[in-house]
This record gives sequence, structure tokens and C-alpha cells, in this order.
Amino acid sequence: MLLAQVDDGVIDVEEKLSQTINTDVNLLLDASLHIVDSGGKRLRPRLTILSYLAAGGQNISEVIPLAAAIELVHTATLVHDDINDHSLTRRGKISVHAQWGKTFALLTGDYLFTKVYELMAPYDSTYNIIMADACVKLVEGETLQAEAAKNGSIDRETYKLIIERKTASLFQAAARMGALLAGAEESIVEYLAQYAYFLGLAFQMVDDVLDVVGDPDVLGKPIGSDVVQGMGGVANQNGNTVMEGATATGIGPIKIMLAQLIESGAIEIAKAQANEWAHRAQDALLNIPESPSRDELNNLVHLVVHRNR
Amino acid sequence: MLLAQVDDGVIDVEEKLSQTINTDVNLLLDASLHIVDSGGKRLRPRLTILSYLAAGGQNISEVIPLAAAIELVHTATLVHDDINDHSLTRRGKISVHAQWGKTFALLTGDYLFTKVYELMAPYDSTYNIIMADACVKLVEGETLQAEAAKNGSIDRETYKLIIERKTASLFQAAARMGALLAGAEESIVEYLAQYAYFLGLAFQMVDDVLDVVGDPDVLGKPIGSDVVQGMGGVANQNGNTVMEGATATGIGPIKIMLAQLIESGAIEIAKAQANEWAHRAQDALLNIPESPSRDELNNLVHLVVHRNR
Repeated sequence: MLLAQVDDGVIDVEEKLSQTINTDVNLLLDASLHIVDSGGKRLRPRLTILSYLAAGGQNISEVIPLAAAIELVHTATLVHDDINDHSLTRRGKISVHAQWGKTFALLTGDYLFTKVYELMAPYDSTYNIIMADACVKLVEGETLQAEAAKNGSIDRETYKLIIERKTASLFQAAARMGALLAGAEESIVEYLAQYAYFLGLAFQMVDDVLDVVGDPDVLGKPIGSDVVQGMGGVANQNGNTVMEGATATGIGPIKIMLAQLIESGAIEIAKAQANEWAHRAQDALLNIPESPSRDELNNLVHLVVHRNR
Repeated sequence: MLLAQVDDGVIDVEEKLSQTINTDVNLLLDASLHIVDSGGKRLRPRLTILSYLAAGGQNISEVIPLAAAIELVHTATLVHDDINDHSLTRRGKISVHAQWGKTFALLTGDYLFTKVYELMAPYDSTYNIIMADACVKLVEGETLQAEAAKNGSIDRETYKLIIERKTASLFQAAARMGALLAGAEESIVEYLAQYAYFLGLAFQMVDDVLDVVGDPDVLGKPIGSDVVQGMGGVANQNGNTVMEGATATGIGPIKIMLAQLIESGAIEIAKAQANEWAHRAQDALLNIPESPSRDELNNLVHLVVHRNR
């Protein structure tokens, strides 16, 4: 019952996204539809909707535009990420920059971001301040990651800072805005934000592990593509990823590095860290009233940690 | 007296910009300061401040954040434009992408745009809707321009659509927001918006003419850099720019094209069009109450049309 409601909400989010990106500039429309319609886990809109419900919201249709805005931030960053990572595929399809070239991919990412702003503009400042803050942090995180990639090395502290800003911040904004829209009291809003923060950290670390050990056919993108960008993330016991000899263009060094990561035991350490964050997410949930939506947020943690894509 | 006040306001805008781009990610801070501190005409914040005053605003400090947000939109687009145009210089300095590389330039542009959003977020939805709309149009205009560049040809109708969206929209938003903040009645807001729209069109066309015939030492960027991107804009009597044989990389064909444009009389046609738009801007001003600020807005039209940089 609840899950079907949330699934319907996600479909409404997808419809809202398709409406939002409408423009008379055909190239922008085509490229935007290409990435917006390419599926994806839709984890962030799901999180927004469930946070709204868990905080006492009664009318899912009310939260759809906010959930769409959150998903669109993520989508915009994917387009720019794929330019910087030289990724040719995304979600099993050709990437925007591979199809339309770098110039138009850059503009498509910009366009999607202006459409986030358009979606958010009608809301009052509370929501816009939360969203703007998340967007700033996201770009800061992406930049720290690109710097780490360039340096070819990353310590654990920097890794956490990166995933906090580039992933956890948006998760947190999703939960916070959903809960605020439900009219929840401040403590509920903050516990849900805390939940989402740890969910985001766990999600990103699992993502990085999958990038190293996952099956490319399941993931729909070439293995090691994030690692090439230096995300690495899966630090070895000395707190550093083994990036020596790895370059953004050579395929040999990447494979060597992946093998080294697996052999060094870094993968197991990363999984343990993700589990710890997952538990902290679940602990935060215990502070909000019991409900089917709360149970579903709890399940989301399991899904995030135990997924294979 | 008034001009000194406005100049002080522009200095406050520059200070606000420097404060706004503050971040613990040093690379983003350095690259942002590089472009934000590189001067420029500061025409858009000047327009915002003068519109506020002409609409009856009394306290310039009130309009500074809006003026800063408008200038920051422009600044963000310059960083992304320079990536797409392969421009090595901007305002007489090395461009962000030439200094930091494409990846970080892309992220710096994204960062500046998120900072626009952060500046705007505290305002109520009226302002955010205006700004979001201008940002969407701006990216649409940039995309149409890049498409024209790729096709190597542009007709007059498309040229007008491009400059309307990529330039006039932001000018219009600047005037509209300034006038709204002053609490002006709707007709005043709309006449100032109309003024700014025509000022924007005239400004962009003069910019394109200068790109063809200007002195590179005065302009601080290599001549033809916008034309290479196909901006062209200075259509010949058939309504088409002569782009045949011009490529983004070859310098020979560009020089040939520039010579062809000048010989074809297209420059004179463009100047006449800019003058017509300038007059329409001035006509719109006649509908608002006389004031020193209105006179200054009128002068701005002269400055825009008769500038050599």
C-alpha cells in the first residue's frame, strides 16, 4: 500500500521532470530528455517523499515538485561529471557528452541546473536556502574530488569530506525539505536530516566499492570510471588509495590499481565503514514516531547497503 | 553626486561578490576571485542600482545583494563561455580554463552559479522567479548560439532570438528586480524592464560589432573570438553571416571572414540596428518620472552604443 503510493509518487516526479525541462530549443530538450528519462534509482525523490510522509505529511502530490528538484540537481551533476570523467556511458545509455559533444553537454548541465532553480523559485526562502546550501556543497565536493584525482592520492579525511559534500548534503536537503513541507516540529526535521546524512555517506561508499568490484553489465557504466577520476574512496590501511601509476587515459594502470585495492583489503574496510554509517542512519530514525514510512526509510538503508548496482 | 553614489554602490557590489565566493576549497576560491576581481564594465550592477533609484528607491545598500547576484550570473557564464570558445584570455587576463584547466573551469562556473542561488535564496519568490527565468533564457540563448556556430550560418531572426535570451533577459531581470525592490508601481517596473531589454539588445549588438572591428588591446580579448563561436551576429544584407571556410581552429579563414563582413557593409547595418534599439530604450524611459537617475539611465544608452570596448 505505502510502497505503491511511493512508486506512484516517483512516477509523478518523472512526469514533473519531463514537463519542467520543456523548451523550444530542441537540442536542450532532446539532451535533457535523454538523461532525465534514462531511469536511475530515483533514490533521492524516494527519500524526499518518504521523509515527508514519515514527518506526518498527508498529501504526496504536495511534495512532488521538491522531490523533482532534488532529482534534477543530481541529474545536472551527472551530465557535468560525465564530461570531466570522459565517461561514454551512463545508466546503460550513451552519455550526453558522447552523443552531443562537450559544448552542448556543458550547456545541458547548466540548463538542468537553471531548471532546478525554476522549480524551487516559487517556494519560500527556507527551502531555497536549504537547496542553495546543498548545491554549493555539492560543487565543492566535486572539486575536492577532482583535485584528489589530479594529485593521484587521497586520505580518509578528505574522502569523507568529499562524499559528505557531494552526496550526503543533497540527501540531507531532500529529507529536511520533505519534513519541513509536512509541517513537522524541528526535532523531527533534524532527526530525518541526520538519518539522510548517514544514508548518503553509506550510499556513496557502497557506490565507490561497486565501482571497483561490481559487474559492469549490472551497473550500466564502465568499471573504474569513478576511480579514474580519483574518487577511489576505498582507502587502504595506511589511509591512502593506491593511485601510483594510474592515469586517466591508460587502462593498464587502472586495472593494476583495482587489483591492488582488492588485495590490500581496502574493500572490506570500506564495507565496514558503510555498515557503520548505515547503523547510524537507522539509529537516527528511532527518534521519530513509528510509522510505515519510518519502516520504509529503515528498509532504504538495507537496500542502499546491500545493492549490487 | 549621483554618479559617485552609484560608483560607491558598484564597489560595494564587488565587495559583496568577494565575500560571497568565500569557501574552504582553495582552488574554487582562487579561480573565483581570479574572474570576479578581473574588473569588467560592471554594467549590469550599475543598471540594477540605477533602476532601483529611478523607481524611487532611497537606500542603495538595500539593492547591493541583488546587483551582485546579477553580476555573478554574468561572471559564471563567462567562465563556461571561455571553455566552449577556447578563449585563452578574458578581460586582459588569462582565462580560468587556460589557468586551471577545463575540469576546474567547469566546476568554477558551476560554483559561481550555485553562489548566485545562495545570494538570491533569502528573497521572496517574486525575485527568484524573475531570476530563474532569466537564467533559463540565458542558457537557451547560449545554446542557440553554439548551434549557429556549429552550423556556420545564422539568420537575423535567430540572431535576435540569441541576443534576446543570452543578454537582454538578464538586463531586463536586473531592472525589474531593482524597480520591484524600490516598491515602484507595476507600470514603472515594466517600463524600466522594457528600457533594459532594448539596452541589452543594443549592448550585445555593439559588442558583436566590436568583436569584429575593435582594437584587441582595448578590448582585452582576441578579436574574432566570439565570431569563431559563430556569434557573428553582424548579418550581411542577405541576413546571413559569411561563415563559410571559417573554423574554430584555423586563423586564416577567420581573418578572411572578418574582412568579408566589413566589406559587405554588414557592420554598418548592425550599427544602425543597435542605434534603433538604443532609441527604443530611451523612449521607454520617457514613461517614468524625471529624476537624476533616469538621466543617468539615459546616459547609459549613449555609453553602451558609443563605447570602444
